[in-house]
Amino acid sequence: MRKIYLENIPRHEARDKFLTNIQMTPREETISTREAAGRTTSRPVFAALSMPGYHAAAMDGIAVRAEDTFNASDQNPLILSEGESFQYVDTGKPLPENFDAVIKIEEVHQLEDGSVEILAPATPWQHVRSVGEDIVAGEIIVPAHHELRPPDLGALLAGGVAEIPVIAKPRIAILPTGTEIIPPEAARHKGEVPDFNSIVIRSYLEEWGAEPIILPPVPDHPEEIKECTASALKEADAVIIIAGSSAGSKDYTYQAIAEEGEVFVHGVATRPGKPTILGQISGKPAIGLPGYPVSAYMSLEWFVRPLVYSYYQKDEPQREKLTASLGRRVISEIGTEEHVRMAVGFVNEKFVANPLHRGAGVTMSLVRADGLLIIPPETVGHEQDENVEVELYRPARELYNNLLASGSHDLVIDLLATRLKEHHRGYTLSASHLGSMGGITAIDKEQAHLAGIHLLDPKSGEYNLPYVEHYLSGRRVILITLVHRMQGWIVPPGNPDNLQDIKDLAGQNINFVNRQKGAGTRILFDFLLKEAGISPAEIYGYSREEHTHLNVAASVASGSARAGLGILPAAQAFELDFIPLREERYDLLMNEDFYHSEAGEALVEIINNPGFQKEVEELGGYSMREAGIVRN
Amino acid sequence: MRKIYLENIPRHEARDKFLTNIQMTPREETISTREAAGRTTSRPVFAALSMPGYHAAAMDGIAVRAEDTFNASDQNPLILSEGESFQYVDTGKPLPENFDAVIKIEEVHQLEDGSVEILAPATPWQHVRSVGEDIVAGEIIVPAHHELRPPDLGALLAGGVAEIPVIAKPRIAILPTGTEIIPPEAARHKGEVPDFNSIVIRSYLEEWGAEPIILPPVPDHPEEIKECTASALKEADAVIIIAGSSAGSKDYTYQAIAEEGEVFVHGVATRPGKPTILGQISGKPAIGLPGYPVSAYMSLEWFVRPLVYSYYQKDEPQREKLTASLGRRVISEIGTEEHVRMAVGFVNEKFVANPLHRGAGVTMSLVRADGLLIIPPETVGHEQDENVEVELYRPARELYNNLLASGSHDLVIDLLATRLKEHHRGYTLSASHLGSMGGITAIDKEQAHLAGIHLLDPKSGEYNLPYVEHYLSGRRVILITLVHRMQGWIVPPGNPDNLQDIKDLAGQNINFVNRQKGAGTRILFDFLLKEAGISPAEIYGYSREEHTHLNVAASVASGSARAGLGILPAAQAFELDFIPLREERYDLLMNEDFYHSEAGEALVEIINNPGFQKEVEELGGYSMREAGIVRN
Repeated sequence: MRKIYLENIPRHEARDKFLTNIQMTPREETISTREAAGRTTSRPVFAALSMPGYHAAAMDGIAVRAEDTFNASDQNPLILSEGESFQYVDTGKPLPENFDAVIKIEEVHQLEDGSVEILAPATPWQHVRSVGEDIVAGEIIVPAHHELRPPDLGALLAGGVAEIPVIAKPRIAILPTGTEIIPPEAARHKGEVPDFNSIVIRSYLEEWGAEPIILPPVPDHPEEIKECTASALKEADAVIIIAGSSAGSKDYTYQAIAEEGEVFVHGVATRPGKPTILGQISGKPAIGLPGYPVSAYMSLEWFVRPLVYSYYQKDEPQREKLTASLGRRVISEIGTEEHVRMAVGFVNEKFVANPLHRGAGVTMSLVRADGLLIIPPETVGHEQDENVEVELYRPARELYNNLLASGSHDLVIDLLATRLKEHHRGYTLSASHLGSMGGITAIDKEQAHLAGIHLLDPKSGEYNLPYVEHYLSGRRVILITLVHRMQGWIVPPGNPDNLQDIKDLAGQNINFVNRQKGAGTRILFDFLLKEAGISPAEIYGYSREEHTHLNVAASVASGSARAGLGILPAAQAFELDFIPLREERYDLLMNEDFYHSEAGEALVEIINNPGFQKEVEELGGYSMREAGIVRN
Repeated sequence: MRKIYLENIPRHEARDKFLTNIQMTPREETISTREAAGRTTSRPVFAALSMPGYHAAAMDGIAVRAEDTFNASDQNPLILSEGESFQYVDTGKPLPENFDAVIKIEEVHQLEDGSVEILAPATPWQHVRSVGEDIVAGEIIVPAHHELRPPDLGALLAGGVAEIPVIAKPRIAILPTGTEIIPPEAARHKGEVPDFNSIVIRSYLEEWGAEPIILPPVPDHPEEIKECTASALKEADAVIIIAGSSAGSKDYTYQAIAEEGEVFVHGVATRPGKPTILGQISGKPAIGLPGYPVSAYMSLEWFVRPLVYSYYQKDEPQREKLTASLGRRVISEIGTEEHVRMAVGFVNEKFVANPLHRGAGVTMSLVRADGLLIIPPETVGHEQDENVEVELYRPARELYNNLLASGSHDLVIDLLATRLKEHHRGYTLSASHLGSMGGITAIDKEQAHLAGIHLLDPKSGEYNLPYVEHYLSGRRVILITLVHRMQGWIVPPGNPDNLQDIKDLAGQNINFVNRQKGAGTRILFDFLLKEAGISPAEIYGYSREEHTHLNVAASVASGSARAGLGILPAAQAFELDFIPLREERYDLLMNEDFYHSEAGEALVEIINNPGFQKEVEELGGYSMREAGIVRN
């Protein structure tokens, strides 16, 4: 039976429905105290021995009987003889029998005959660490449900507790499904998908304190999935089935759970994460996660993390939040709670958040994200410049030094980011690319610290400056050259269509892939068309847009396009041919105050660094000959 | 040569002197990506493959050629035949060759002959995940010096990166020294000290990202210590020598470092932590830590933690701070920076911090601490009620629910604390015991939530209430009975002095151990003396004070006292004899508002819980017969 309808249950309702219906049953185990850091006690732990276990000297000096010394004074020095009326002791050593006080060595006058002289009395038990000063046998060292930190281990071992009862880590089986699934490191063929989701889920579970067990992938056979799930639960306290959780013709996760147990929720009113299944089999939680990675990880956090924390009777840690000005409009579907990954930085005295790629399959959006914007189901989204609350993936204090890059994408920006992180401790750079024109707007509206632009002015033939003068007239900005780079045709190896001039594209059946509007490369292409008197309608594929050079090259490499306009490193990454066409100047645009800030100076320092320049030029297709020159 | 003079270098100066002189040299290693969570990249990592690696359907539906569908509309339905003009595809599957768009299955009308009807055109590349949508071969996935989180591993594996270059964990050797040192779990004899410090240091180092190597303990022989240090540094990037770091006659750590390398600092102006040595041997950091546990862990944090973070080029995490009202005066020595462990709670709308035991050997002070009060060298301390800044060991938000217990110590309070933590999620209890009279003061001054008291009124023979009425008249407080308990003589097994009546103590040579002033047990003892007409001067040991029942029992068990007054469980913990003398009532005193709060109700619920009452009575010497009764 194919089920083709997903519910649309609000996230918090789904979570409550799940957690009130099913929980993992806590188990206890006894482990070696020395290995117990980070574990949680299952009951109070009592000291078996006292520490110290004997009266010990707390100072280097001499042990005495206090009552012998009561009359000693400046006027009436007291002579003590070794063995009988005093003994030398070192810190930590047992107080000799029949002595009850220690006098510091500094206060003792050692005489030539081996006896000593003291000028003040000792009070009983002075400078003595008495039995149990630290820990007394029988006392509680740590309570139940206590997460053990390093000094706790010290106190436990000091108290003679070599083994302790802890809450056993909950075992959670991870069952990847899909006939197309191969191990993440295996060689790939068309139609095969590496199972990296299991590794990510495993790492999250370990972070939260669970013991994940990754099972081998199961192909899309309903009976096999059902059997593997049942067999996983013999060992595990819960099972996560990855993929097949939606309502497609090859989606069997729903029936695997429903037929062997019970489904509480199928379909959550979120994006990403909708096709989630929450249920139970044999009294143990069974979760069906979406196959799209971002959906899977979000859903894992919403539903499996509380399961683990609740097993330990702990509250889930809360993410830090901050209010930021939205750099771009974000629209959202009514009835769906949207979770948008955001780049966040502190621009001109306020926090700014720019949305990243929203695709559920785009893991890089999570890699790049500084935080998350959650748009409630009843909202259609937020306007540009609106203040929004962002849940942070990184501490807010780091984000003060997180530079937001906008504008055109270039690999050199990524290299700049990695150098910055490497050599200027504390600074990081988050990029959300919008094309050159988008970069000018971002600087104008103070939504980014810097923007890469490469905009040819058709009239003057000059790069960038005319645009800055036109769009940012009167603003205090700096335009500084990063690099010159060669634009050219990216074509299949051997240039089978013998593409040279733009005229070779016109009216031909050469499938072209274009860049998005506002991109400098698109403007260059339009300029070349105009120069040659060719209409866009004559170019097959003119309306197909990709957002980066690398994506253009990927389209050519996959055979879905025969040509694109882009830069050499992109062609090289896919072992494609590159026909040089025109060198262009790629500048960085920034606010003048930022240019003079510590962060701005750090960037300029890197741009002028010969090692960095060499690294860039070695990529091919780049010249750093005018790097660092201010153009305005 | 014995060196008997320690320097007194301010902590930050010592740290700078150390870190500017010596650092660990970073090493790089290549590890499996799947095991890389929490590790730090040593260089930028570039994608080797694109994800997806082929154009894939983003929806379940049919693959079509967009140009074939341009004329489809409601008025002009288009019939497509399978194989030739469309193919069925499922989400994630490759787009069949020669097709360039996907139409969702919901928008397709399946006809009986196997062909399909569509009512709207498809746009090129709709519902297609194109090659590299997530990751494009050649792009940077993560920069250098990036700490890898779970989704990063997903992106790396998706990008075909199975192995990555990371910064190798710095290897730090831990060398325990001291002839008295035995393994932490070994059976103990008098004069032997278990080496729990190595385990604590190891756990801290692991937490910070280092790879600790614990070496076998070395006895106090200068040559052996020197040899083991040198041999440790063949493998390790740094060495920590535990103990022998002061200036005593058996302290050889200074010369081990000075003779083989160089000492930058010997003696830091802090308490605890003063006898610290910071130096280098063969260009690698060599640290001598004090043997006292609290000193060792503090010194480790001040000097070794920055070494590890600096190795990774990371900033050390900062502790959260808060301002609290000081519950008791804290005095400090001029010229020394004091680090005082504090219990912190939120009492009557303000944070209160109470100092814990300040002994450098008291690991329990770290176990119990919620935070740290740092008193600068130029300050003589702080007065009661003064506002002080406390560095927190726990998140501030947890401390809102941390109950401060004061007053007399009883094991039942510890059991209450562990039940609270176990059954009332979020609540914890920190105790700093001051005796019953101290407890009354703490409630009066709103420095604690609750105080255990057992105060006999000599005139009326009544417990507690007369004191509350006298000292807290007019205050809205609640006095509630926790337990009745038997006080008696704690004596060596077999009661060798045949101690029964208090008269048996007077004028005899029976070495007594007393409790501190203000303790209920001390007041009881004084009452018994007065009743019997005995003067304190007649009691040998009257002036020797211990702070808990368990410490009194420990003194008797060690032979340093022959008798003490205390409760049965304390005698039992040390297998001593107990001569019952008088039953007393142990009540909890609290502010009325607290009594009615959620936390107060949680406490009362535990006190009235039959399971808890049974647990207490099974300890012996306790009766819960009137538990929960309000006395005022």
